[in-house]
Amino acid sequence: MHKQPLAIRIEKKKQMSKTRKFRLGAFIQATGHHVSAWRHPDSQADAGFNFEHYKEITQTAQRGLFDAVFLADSPGVWGGAPETQKRNGKLVHFEPVTLFSALSAVTQNIGFIATASTTYEEPYTLARKFASLDYLSNGRAGWNVVTTGNENAAANFGLQHHPEHSQRYERAEEFVEVVKGLWDSWDDDAFIRDKESGIYFDPDKLHTLNHKGQHFSVKGPLNVGRPPQGYPVIVQAGASEAGRDLAARTAEVIFTANQTLADAQEFYADVKGRLVKYGRSPDDLKIMPGAFPIIGRTEEEAQEKYEFLQSLIHPDVAWGILKTYYKGVDLSKYSLDDLAPELPNETNNNKSRLKLVKDLATRGTLTLRQLYLALATARGHRTILGTPETIADQLEEWFNNGAADGFNIMPPILPTGLDDFVNLVVPVLQKRGLFRTEYEGSTLRENLGLRRPVNQFTVKQLDERLVLA
Amino acid sequence: MHKQPLAIRIEKKKQMSKTRKFRLGAFIQATGHHVSAWRHPDSQADAGFNFEHYKEITQTAQRGLFDAVFLADSPGVWGGAPETQKRNGKLVHFEPVTLFSALSAVTQNIGFIATASTTYEEPYTLARKFASLDYLSNGRAGWNVVTTGNENAAANFGLQHHPEHSQRYERAEEFVEVVKGLWDSWDDDAFIRDKESGIYFDPDKLHTLNHKGQHFSVKGPLNVGRPPQGYPVIVQAGASEAGRDLAARTAEVIFTANQTLADAQEFYADVKGRLVKYGRSPDDLKIMPGAFPIIGRTEEEAQEKYEFLQSLIHPDVAWGILKTYYKGVDLSKYSLDDLAPELPNETNNNKSRLKLVKDLATRGTLTLRQLYLALATARGHRTILGTPETIADQLEEWFNNGAADGFNIMPPILPTGLDDFVNLVVPVLQKRGLFRTEYEGSTLRENLGLRRPVNQFTVKQLDERLVLA
Repeated sequence: MHKQPLAIRIEKKKQMSKTRKFRLGAFIQATGHHVSAWRHPDSQADAGFNFEHYKEITQTAQRGLFDAVFLADSPGVWGGAPETQKRNGKLVHFEPVTLFSALSAVTQNIGFIATASTTYEEPYTLARKFASLDYLSNGRAGWNVVTTGNENAAANFGLQHHPEHSQRYERAEEFVEVVKGLWDSWDDDAFIRDKESGIYFDPDKLHTLNHKGQHFSVKGPLNVGRPPQGYPVIVQAGASEAGRDLAARTAEVIFTANQTLADAQEFYADVKGRLVKYGRSPDDLKIMPGAFPIIGRTEEEAQEKYEFLQSLIHPDVAWGILKTYYKGVDLSKYSLDDLAPELPNETNNNKSRLKLVKDLATRGTLTLRQLYLALATARGHRTILGTPETIADQLEEWFNNGAADGFNIMPPILPTGLDDFVNLVVPVLQKRGLFRTEYEGSTLRENLGLRRPVNQFTVKQLDERLVLA
Repeated sequence: MHKQPLAIRIEKKKQMSKTRKFRLGAFIQATGHHVSAWRHPDSQADAGFNFEHYKEITQTAQRGLFDAVFLADSPGVWGGAPETQKRNGKLVHFEPVTLFSALSAVTQNIGFIATASTTYEEPYTLARKFASLDYLSNGRAGWNVVTTGNENAAANFGLQHHPEHSQRYERAEEFVEVVKGLWDSWDDDAFIRDKESGIYFDPDKLHTLNHKGQHFSVKGPLNVGRPPQGYPVIVQAGASEAGRDLAARTAEVIFTANQTLADAQEFYADVKGRLVKYGRSPDDLKIMPGAFPIIGRTEEEAQEKYEFLQSLIHPDVAWGILKTYYKGVDLSKYSLDDLAPELPNETNNNKSRLKLVKDLATRGTLTLRQLYLALATARGHRTILGTPETIADQLEEWFNNGAADGFNIMPPILPTGLDDFVNLVVPVLQKRGLFRTEYEGSTLRENLGLRRPVNQFTVKQLDERLVLA
């Protein structure tokens, strides 16, 4: 696709990058993103319930001028056979919105993007807690909208089966609309609080949603004022057809998983192209692929770090990873050094991720060992390995070639993996003029360069007045 | 009932009080408990979304060695005619669990008791967020279990009607059992985190609830470890027949509303008497009536403070308060100086509070003005007015005469109403040996003198082993 050497391609785009800056998220999964991160001598094995640990890494991300920290979530324990499950350091952890509320009290600039499910939550409850987090943090909240990939969640909410992919996306669309409607319950200037007259708010600036739809009937108003950002930043991660369309309609940030520049470019162009049909401009949506960085002072040190991490994977964990993807396939006749067989087609769980793994498996020459080693790092996200300079090169290549507006950095282990990025890579990005040297604004929305949404009821009232005039 | 003068009665009980200490909660409702608190020159009118305000008052409560701060909640906006509603300073505010999570990061000892609804939440979601708060605060969380009195909530959750009182209590009982079962998903020592062997937890110490009941079907396990306190402290406020029984079965603290010593004694004896049938001892439940203190350096100053507060009530607000209780009664033929007519019987909303107001109204000689003035202070809770010494006397009288184990202090305005209590009344209580001079423990449970509950699955396993042996 790109015939010119990397250095020339970067040079060509320098002009463009003068004004455009990287967006950076720090995906702060407890002990780190490597499947066996918790076994690493430098990792904090009890990270999932260690507030001081999260405080340290979030303050590190803020020192590194990241836009936001990010947490994944599902309302259930991840399954697996006992011999694999007992080796999983990621089953238990803080609930993200409570954790981020606490972290908001000990930070000033960094944003907080929490995952929450449209399949297993109620719009009123979700709208409230994110609005509350937005007030607590003075405008630093973001909601990563997911329909939930963890099928174990269903049985925790009285359901026999995890709803079908298409049903989940239908519900998600309506859910997001309801939540936005609730966030618009009050005009930004509804609260007068005039002690003299005793009038607390202007009743003309209170809007009752009265939503009645396919999945929800929600009257409102919300018992929280309009969030400081209007709406907390809307984030998405799904990359299936339905996911891309929902993102183009509602998302302001996408965290995506791409392995190759070509795939990332296809995704970037496709999703940005969909925005116009929803009356949005390409700048209204920031696309941030995940990147799992292994940083060494030399290439050799980075390679050694990588191999040490991979050596921590117990064989039971290796087979556990493979079985997650080869559902219904009998793997007992294979050894880890056999070529990876073809993957099954049917799934109700994370369609876009399956496609990606399929691409890996069918690129033709991977053994099962190579496949699990590829998946063990960042579950299909891109691994970038090297010195601070070459890590920066790899990020810049995607940024300057229509594949990314920034990256969601996934440290292999925490806290040291994030320390390395902030101490070693961020200064390189800054020197190249690719990344901020101070926060531009005070809200997440301002730092990401996103517009503050206008209250939908105010817009309607203006429209009505224009019609009358 | 008590013929001896107050001073003698207090003397008689001094011996007893040497070992028994007051429990104190601070009910930190945004601008304060008086219905027009927000209009007071000293109040923080935007308190509902002012984190610095909550930080200040929570740190004040901690300086005063309170056991906990407490917040009421319902998932809906309180209604009322627009002319009353627009004067209400309590419609919008932080969601309590997110607020308390943030406050946990800036405090060390004080507990956090958040109200959450068994009618409008899901057990899995609720169990998670309270367990998470318990970890964030290192064992300082409490859950005030309510079935929700605010009928407006129903329409926010797709329901035509707020469920009936008896249905709500049936669901509440099962809800609490499910939540406790989820908190017991992991043994206290389930997590080994052995980096050498790669084993993160002992699978024998993971318990899947598999609950299937009348209202809920919840498999588990919870994706949060067993909370530091075993269970966050279980609190209740309902005082109806169903409420008292649920409390005797499950509550560890009751916040109650009583106006007279005799009523408080009846409640105290009745609820403590119910404990034995659930295998519990009287000490397993602390009864803490609400108290709305108006504190002056002299009685006259206190009286002036009280009258100034009452003067802030706009007539529309006065009629609004009365209409809340006189549902279906045409009040238009009455003036505020007429005797209060009898109250209607039927209600689906807060039965115990209605009885209390009824008692006030039918004590015979109150005018409608006197009734609303009585309700305007603390919605039926006891008002205590005087100097620090006489305030302490009034609290001590109940504490020493089988009416209370402590009190939930409801400052008329915030922050100054709490400042007064901590600066002026707490030292008097301490001098009398009635209140701690330092925190006894590090968890809310330890400070309240409550036992840490044993994991129900551990108990079952022990029982099974005993049977086998």
